[in-house]
Amino acid sequence: MSNKEEYFIIGKRSVIEALRAHYPIRVVIFERGVTRDEVIKGIFNHAKKQDIQILERDSRWFERRFRSLNPQGVVAVGLPYVYAGLEELTIKSNSIFLILDRIQDPQNFGAIIRSAECSGVQGIIISEKESVGVTESVMSISSGAVFHVKIVKVPNLLYAVRYLKERKVWVIGTQPNASASYYEIDFRKVPFAVVIGNEGEGIRQGIIKECDYVVSIPMRGRVNSLNASVATGILLFKIIEAKSTNGEL
Amino acid sequence: MSNKEEYFIIGKRSVIEALRAHYPIRVVIFERGVTRDEVIKGIFNHAKKQDIQILERDSRWFERRFRSLNPQGVVAVGLPYVYAGLEELTIKSNSIFLILDRIQDPQNFGAIIRSAECSGVQGIIISEKESVGVTESVMSISSGAVFHVKIVKVPNLLYAVRYLKERKVWVIGTQPNASASYYEIDFRKVPFAVVIGNEGEGIRQGIIKECDYVVSIPMRGRVNSLNASVATGILLFKIIEAKSTNGEL
Repeated sequence: MSNKEEYFIIGKRSVIEALRAHYPIRVVIFERGVTRDEVIKGIFNHAKKQDIQILERDSRWFERRFRSLNPQGVVAVGLPYVYAGLEELTIKSNSIFLILDRIQDPQNFGAIIRSAECSGVQGIIISEKESVGVTESVMSISSGAVFHVKIVKVPNLLYAVRYLKERKVWVIGTQPNASASYYEIDFRKVPFAVVIGNEGEGIRQGIIKECDYVVSIPMRGRVNSLNASVATGILLFKIIEAKSTNGEL
Repeated sequence: MSNKEEYFIIGKRSVIEALRAHYPIRVVIFERGVTRDEVIKGIFNHAKKQDIQILERDSRWFERRFRSLNPQGVVAVGLPYVYAGLEELTIKSNSIFLILDRIQDPQNFGAIIRSAECSGVQGIIISEKESVGVTESVMSISSGAVFHVKIVKVPNLLYAVRYLKERKVWVIGTQPNASASYYEIDFRKVPFAVVIGNEGEGIRQGIIKECDYVVSIPMRGRVNSLNASVATGILLFKIIEAKSTNGEL
């Protein structure tokens, strides 16, 4: 377990979802005396069935290593996250993709992955540079959603945007001062990719220029800045609503 | 500053919004050598204008006290947050309220306040028991939104729900298995209150029974659980969309 190539998957929800997705796991470690609720029992049964080693450690071991990450009595040891390739994305008329232009906060990235998985996003594309990757904390914050959605890491985000556009995906950028509101767009009938920009600086100009639409989320308050994961949720669920009421989903 | 009745307001955004909202502040403390960007300059000028004492501390002082809270070179010392009373809420035909049934995670509560402020919510109602209150970290996570929205803390949430209903506010509850989708509701013409339930257990049955509508957010993935602040954002911005396209806002 001291191998640097090994990753901890932390917390009940993350571990059960990793097992359900048949993510490669070497060992599951329970906290001694953990309450055997339904999820813990499920983890135990999945691990048994998949012939995964099961260990126990005391609460001090958990506290020392995972204090701030809320392990809830269970962690698993697996390999580092394996990203998908662009060519592994399946593009259909009802597909939705998410492009993240330099999201840097693990809390935001984890929450975005969770929202993306809940809205059936077919793939999340991130850039290699200036972005947080799929770290242990991101996995944990995503509540296991990370194991059910493809994440693609590319050296050049602009290339990925063009790749999707060439395959008839419509690309929607977001900017605070865009004149169109997100709910004015007709989100039916074609596949869409939503671009979410860096927490402070938004989307880079080069990417904005490639977008088929640039929209804003009109706000009413004084602070005028939504959390990146909340903005993502609002946009993705608007697309779902449009596609559902049109019978596409 | 050792007075237990004093609160730290932490981080650039929180401090500037507190000053803008004329929240009672006794002293603003800058980190020595902090980059004098626009926000820091704004804080300095507001503090001068309002005759608030200005101090400097070194980076070690900041690090020791506020490490995990990302102070960004500035904190302010004020009084503990003062909650509003139910009777201070103004109810108009386009009003939106938020009722939180035992939100316990400061991260969620802070993000919810931020989404609520951005959607022009007139008031957030929380229960005294089993809920996180407006703590220093909640203030900080809300990015200062907390200073621009009324938050009411009540001993009995059911009483607050009835209080709003008697004043013609329609109450919308959320449940994962509700048969109606949130976008099937006609959100125009009347004031609405959205109820968001506890992260694990949802809304208590007694409150669900009082709701005029109970709706779900239909999802497409496998994990099937949105973060509470994302769910709040989706619902609130759907109401804004409905009221905006109807010319009510």
